[in-house]
Amino acid sequence: MKSLGTVAIMGVGLIGGSIGLALRQRGLSERVIGIGRNAARLRKAKQLGAITETTTQIERGVSDADIVIVGTPVELVVEHVKQISQFVGPQTLITDVGSTKQTIVEGVRKLEQGLFVGSHPMAGSDQGGVAHADADLFANRTVVVTPDKSTDENACRRVARMWKALGARVVKMDCKAHDRAVSVISHLPHTISSVLSSQATSEQLELAAGGWADTTRIAGADPELWLEILRDNNKQVIRAVDRFLADLHKFRDALEDDNARVLLRYLKQGKQNRESLGN
Amino acid sequence: MKSLGTVAIMGVGLIGGSIGLALRQRGLSERVIGIGRNAARLRKAKQLGAITETTTQIERGVSDADIVIVGTPVELVVEHVKQISQFVGPQTLITDVGSTKQTIVEGVRKLEQGLFVGSHPMAGSDQGGVAHADADLFANRTVVVTPDKSTDENACRRVARMWKALGARVVKMDCKAHDRAVSVISHLPHTISSVLSSQATSEQLELAAGGWADTTRIAGADPELWLEILRDNNKQVIRAVDRFLADLHKFRDALEDDNARVLLRYLKQGKQNRESLGN
Repeated sequence: MKSLGTVAIMGVGLIGGSIGLALRQRGLSERVIGIGRNAARLRKAKQLGAITETTTQIERGVSDADIVIVGTPVELVVEHVKQISQFVGPQTLITDVGSTKQTIVEGVRKLEQGLFVGSHPMAGSDQGGVAHADADLFANRTVVVTPDKSTDENACRRVARMWKALGARVVKMDCKAHDRAVSVISHLPHTISSVLSSQATSEQLELAAGGWADTTRIAGADPELWLEILRDNNKQVIRAVDRFLADLHKFRDALEDDNARVLLRYLKQGKQNRESLGN
Repeated sequence: MKSLGTVAIMGVGLIGGSIGLALRQRGLSERVIGIGRNAARLRKAKQLGAITETTTQIERGVSDADIVIVGTPVELVVEHVKQISQFVGPQTLITDVGSTKQTIVEGVRKLEQGLFVGSHPMAGSDQGGVAHADADLFANRTVVVTPDKSTDENACRRVARMWKALGARVVKMDCKAHDRAVSVISHLPHTISSVLSSQATSEQLELAAGGWADTTRIAGADPELWLEILRDNNKQVIRAVDRFLADLHKFRDALEDDNARVLLRYLKQGKQNRESLGN
C-alpha cells in the first residue's frame, strides 16, 4: 500500500488515537502529528505509539499534513475545521469523525484552503480516551463518508482509500440520510440505555445479570460527549424516540390484553434482526 | 464440602445443564439424574458431563433423589413440581429456576411429599440449550431464594447451601418483591431490547456498531421462553414499562426544549448506575 503521507490528528482520544495506532502499525504513514491542548495527554499518546510528534499549535501541526483528521467533540468540529483550513495547502484532505454530519457538512462549505469530506466511523466504546485506543478498532467496521454536491471527487476517493487502508468498509451517504440512520441505530440505543440505567435502585442492581449489563453498557460512556451528539442531532433523535415510544406502547398494551400474537411478533422480529448482525 | 447427595434435574437446558456440570466438576454429587422428554437431548447432556444418568420418566428420575431441580419453562413449573411431589420422599428438597416466583410459590403450596423452596439464579445467556451450559455460570452471581411462611426452614438452609456450593451469592426475598425487582432489572431490559431490535431496517443494520449490538443482545434469546416469562409477570412488567415510558417521555421533551440540565441528569445518573455494576 502506498503511504498516505503525513497525517495530522487533532484530538487524540479513543478514535483519533486508534487511527494513529492503525496508521503506524500498518506502515501507512511515517509522520503522524498529534495536535491538542493538553501536552501531557499528547505525550501519553506518543508513548502509546499513536502519534510520532506532538504540538499544541494548530498551525505547526497541520501545515505539513497531507491529511488532517479532526477527532474533537462534535460541537467543536466546524470551528476546528475552519481554523485548520487557514494553515493547510489546497490539496490537503480534511476529514472528521463526528457522530452527526449535517451540521458539520453544512458548516464547513466555505473553507480557505483544503478539501473537506465528512466521515463517521461506526466504531467506538463506552471507554473513552487514548488509553483505550486500538489499532483494530476499524477492522471490518463500517465508516460512513458524507460527500455532497460541492465535495471534490478526488478528495472523496482519498478519504475512502484511507479508511479502507485502516480495515474498514466504506459506505457513502448523504449527510441527512446519515443523521437519520444513526439516530435509529446509535443515538436511540444510547438514549434508551441511559434512561434505563438511570432508573435502577441499588437494591435492584444487586439482582442485575447479563441482560441488564448488556443493555446498559453504553450508558457508561461520557455524558458530556453524548449530550452534544444528541443535541446536535436533536430532530432526528426525537423522531426515533417517538417511533420507539409508539412501539413500546403497543407492546405494553399487548401485555395488558395478553395478546400473545402481538408480543411474539415483536420478540421474533427482534431476534431475527439481532441474529442478522452476528455477535 | 459434604456431598449434596443424589440430584435430579428435570429440564436439562442452559440452566439445568450448568447446574449439572457445576455439581459434577465441583465433586458435589455422585449421581446427577437428567429427566426430560427428549432422549437424544438427554444423551447429549450426558456426553457433555452435565448428568450421569438419563430417564424420560419422572418417577424413575426423582424417587432416589435428595434434591430435585426443575429447570423447565416457567409456565410448566407448577405442574412439574406437583408431579414430582408424588414420587419423592418427605425430606426431598424440590426447587426450581423460574424467572418469576409468585405464581410458582403460590401454586405449589400443597404438595404430596417433599419440601419446596423457589429459586431464581440471576444468570443466563441469549444462547439457550445444554450446548451452552457452563460450570461457572453461577460463580459470583446472585441467586434469589423465595421462602414464605409455609416454607420449611431446614429446606431453605439446604437450598441456600446448594447454590453457595455452586459459587453463587444467595439473597432471600419474598416472591412478590422478587417479581417486582426482576420486572425492572430483567424483564424491562428484555422488553426494551426486543422492541428496539425489532425496529431496525436492513439498511440501518449496515451501520450497527457496538452500541446497538450490546443494547439488543438479549433480544436474541428464545421468543417463546420470554413470552411466557413476560406473561407470567404481566402486572409487574407493565408497571416497569410504564415507569420507563414516563422517563423516556421526559428525556424526549428535554431534547425538544434543549434542556441540557435534564438531559445531563439522566446521562450522568445512567453512567453512575452502570459503573456501580462493573463490567
